[in-house]
Amino acid sequence: MVDKSFYKVKENVTLADVAKVTSAVLSDESKGNEKIADIATMASAGVEDICFFYDRKSKEKAAEIKAKACVTTADLVQFLPQSVIALTCENPKLAFVALNEYMYAEHKPQAGIDATAQIAKSAEIGQNCHIGAYAVIGENVTIGDGCVIEPHTVIEHHCKIGNNCRIGSSAYIAYAHIGNNCYIYSGARIGCDGFGFQLINGQHHRIPQLGRVIIGNDVEIGANTCIDRGALDDTVIGDGSRIDNLVQIAHNDKLGRGCVIVSQVGIAGSCTLGDYVVLGGQVGLADHLNIGSMAQIAAQSGVMRDVEAGAVMMGSPCVPFKDFMRQVAFLQKNSKK
Amino acid sequence: MVDKSFYKVKENVTLADVAKVTSAVLSDESKGNEKIADIATMASAGVEDICFFYDRKSKEKAAEIKAKACVTTADLVQFLPQSVIALTCENPKLAFVALNEYMYAEHKPQAGIDATAQIAKSAEIGQNCHIGAYAVIGENVTIGDGCVIEPHTVIEHHCKIGNNCRIGSSAYIAYAHIGNNCYIYSGARIGCDGFGFQLINGQHHRIPQLGRVIIGNDVEIGANTCIDRGALDDTVIGDGSRIDNLVQIAHNDKLGRGCVIVSQVGIAGSCTLGDYVVLGGQVGLADHLNIGSMAQIAAQSGVMRDVEAGAVMMGSPCVPFKDFMRQVAFLQKNSKK
Amino acid sequence: MVDKSFYKVKENVTLADVAKVTSAVLSDESKGNEKIADIATMASAGVEDICFFYDRKSKEKAAEIKAKACVTTADLVQFLPQSVIALTCENPKLAFVALNEYMYAEHKPQAGIDATAQIAKSAEIGQNCHIGAYAVIGENVTIGDGCVIEPHTVIEHHCKIGNNCRIGSSAYIAYAHIGNNCYIYSGARIGCDGFGFQLINGQHHRIPQLGRVIIGNDVEIGANTCIDRGALDDTVIGDGSRIDNLVQIAHNDKLGRGCVIVSQVGIAGSCTLGDYVVLGGQVGLADHLNIGSMAQIAAQSGVMRDVEAGAVMMGSPCVPFKDFMRQVAFLQKNSKK
Repeated sequence: MVDKSFYKVKENVTLADVAKVTSAVLSDESKGNEKIADIATMASAGVEDICFFYDRKSKEKAAEIKAKACVTTADLVQFLPQSVIALTCENPKLAFVALNEYMYAEHKPQAGIDATAQIAKSAEIGQNCHIGAYAVIGENVTIGDGCVIEPHTVIEHHCKIGNNCRIGSSAYIAYAHIGNNCYIYSGARIGCDGFGFQLINGQHHRIPQLGRVIIGNDVEIGANTCIDRGALDDTVIGDGSRIDNLVQIAHNDKLGRGCVIVSQVGIAGSCTLGDYVVLGGQVGLADHLNIGSMAQIAAQSGVMRDVEAGAVMMGSPCVPFKDFMRQVAFLQKNSKK
Repeated sequence: MVDKSFYKVKENVTLADVAKVTSAVLSDESKGNEKIADIATMASAGVEDICFFYDRKSKEKAAEIKAKACVTTADLVQFLPQSVIALTCENPKLAFVALNEYMYAEHKPQAGIDATAQIAKSAEIGQNCHIGAYAVIGENVTIGDGCVIEPHTVIEHHCKIGNNCRIGSSAYIAYAHIGNNCYIYSGARIGCDGFGFQLINGQHHRIPQLGRVIIGNDVEIGANTCIDRGALDDTVIGDGSRIDNLVQIAHNDKLGRGCVIVSQVGIAGSCTLGDYVVLGGQVGLADHLNIGSMAQIAAQSGVMRDVEAGAVMMGSPCVPFKDFMRQVAFLQKNSKK
Repeated sequence: MVDKSFYKVKENVTLADVAKVTSAVLSDESKGNEKIADIATMASAGVEDICFFYDRKSKEKAAEIKAKACVTTADLVQFLPQSVIALTCENPKLAFVALNEYMYAEHKPQAGIDATAQIAKSAEIGQNCHIGAYAVIGENVTIGDGCVIEPHTVIEHHCKIGNNCRIGSSAYIAYAHIGNNCYIYSGARIGCDGFGFQLINGQHHRIPQLGRVIIGNDVEIGANTCIDRGALDDTVIGDGSRIDNLVQIAHNDKLGRGCVIVSQVGIAGSCTLGDYVVLGGQVGLADHLNIGSMAQIAAQSGVMRDVEAGAVMMGSPCVPFKDFMRQVAFLQKNSKK
């Protein structure tokens, strides 16, 4: 049950509303005025709630649904109990997102600039932005329309931020261009110096880091994640990528579109990832690697060589997923002799 | 030697004081007026210091103690040199903590609200709290008695914090209920959105994250650690749990009582841990796992399946500790042929 | 190409300037007035640019250089195309750093104390420091000359910071002495309590952490990295060490001179590292280990035992590099049978 002190909740949502919002067909039109209390998982939904069923593998669980209603596909509707009111649509996943957005919302801060925010005169702030308490915005920064800059965020000189971005509290943004609709979470560090130095006569000499961080549109960057700026070149995050908390992305890395980088991944410098690459939690990449589009690297894997597009890899050093499983089985069997 | 510029140090502590504070028996009562200078380890304690000896495995080291006095058990006292004044008690570990707390203390900030703290009118602050510089406390937040909110901390609307909590500088707290006697360290991020989205037609659609973070009593959460709030459900941290720095705890995870989560652990979403589970440093858990009470997972292990209560596991993917050691030995032996 | 909105770029740099700055000999003195546009890599340098060539392994790549000029050694100059103007010197790496520093610079903030910085009266701030917005500096802190304290940084009571240090935004410094020429990045947490407690009767009792963090000269500590203070003893980082982002260094660890600790490494408590130890990304060390000088531990390795000086180790648990490679080959070969 969503806590109404934290979220805005739409009351008195009917199944007709659900059908409309999700572009679904209500199996029994006479039930259009029935109200639902909450969105819940298949297992936890009570008799006032609605749930979503879109994975054929869960058909046994579907038989035990206790919800008042369930959104599913025309294919899967047969697995629902008689007691559950069915709504069918093409894509219940999309329906799930749509109904969530319709029924619940976070409280958005009001547009306006907090009196304590310190904004350079040369900075340009767009329409309808909220700039939170103690934010520090440097010379020649430009921020688009509809942005929320949370308290204590620091945006260094000459950074550009697009429209409808949200920058979490205490984040640090420097040497960066950020597109539209991005969400940088609290404590993220964007644009710090890369880890570059030369060992000369027993001393590590810092190599000036002179690149930028270029972030596309619709990107999310998790809490306390660090993305260093490039050395001579730029660090680039492609449109639509999703980066989780506590990730390290080093100088000159280039991520394609729609990449998914799970928590605590570390990508060493000068790697190139294609589109829709998935890196599981705690994966590590050595430097200067090419990872082809759609490649998937399982959690905790260590990548020391290039990976082909579409490959599914696992282990440290990683090998194709099937090889890894064979290695695990071999070791388990033979070590017991 | 404790640096007296940083800590408050009680001077002129006598062995009689030690006996009283630690509920120990002084072997030679005539020594009650002898003063000790410092608490130190067995190896480093000098002739003015006191040390503690409670592990039979260290009996050889005990023979080399140079300290003026040593707190130990009736069982172990035989291993001390004649020159060392013995104090015996049932639990020298507890005695160690007690004497530390008696002799040394951090400087606590005075109660009061810094003039620069920005506190919503609807927020309720308890008695004897210290609210540091530039703290930002949102609408309808409640904070109990005796809390210390360090500088630059952001506590978002409707959060509840119990009594005697300490929230470190630049921490971020949102969508959270926190119990009594908790210590959230500097830079921790509590209550950010979970990493949840659906890939639909080549685009990652964010799934609204509508749960909370519920933290029990006597919990510590380390520096720069991230605990995401639940999706529909809550993320829960049980009473007495200890979470180290740079840990990732994802949406809907539920930790029982007294769990110990060492630095850089990553727990994927919807995992359930029983009571007193220990996860070593850098352990990774896949999502939707059940880890039974008292289970211990060694450092760097990767957990892909449920773990039974009391199990001791190691490796990636993890296996029972003995199996892991056998695998390591097998590999070492056979790869050399 | 360096973005001139972010960096200060010296215009009209001639090859004579380069020769002077890098202590190099221009092969053809008649070219001293030729201007260079930019520093670039061997592969990306265009006909107006200069590049550096110092690794014999890259001699084939050298043959394809398109740059106007290249700095190299007397030995390697033979591999350059005729079209490239050569400059020779003893150490092109050093020359690379020197020319970078000459041609490009970050905008340094002006000396001065922001009106919103909160500085205790007993604190001593040296000459020519910049103290940024909302910085909080506690009682009896001393800060040397030429330091930059970025916005929102918190420096707790009695800390000492040397000359020419830079402390990044939102960093937290407590119970610490920091030498000269150090750079602590944004969000680093220096001096939090170590993760120390005793399990007594089912409850974790916190052990007071009473040590300090002692950081030498010329040290860099990455963004969001955590260095806990010692328990009774100090945590020590030796001169010239380089620590990357998101690293965990626990209580009582002692690092020697010039160590390189790559991102997401975790070092458990009471470890001692010699000089110039290199820990690759995501390495984990168990507690109380000794790692000899010049030892190199490959990325993702797990260290459970002491490591000898100069050893090169890999794997979890780590073994000598050659043994690891043999294990990998053995497993790959035999698991396929």
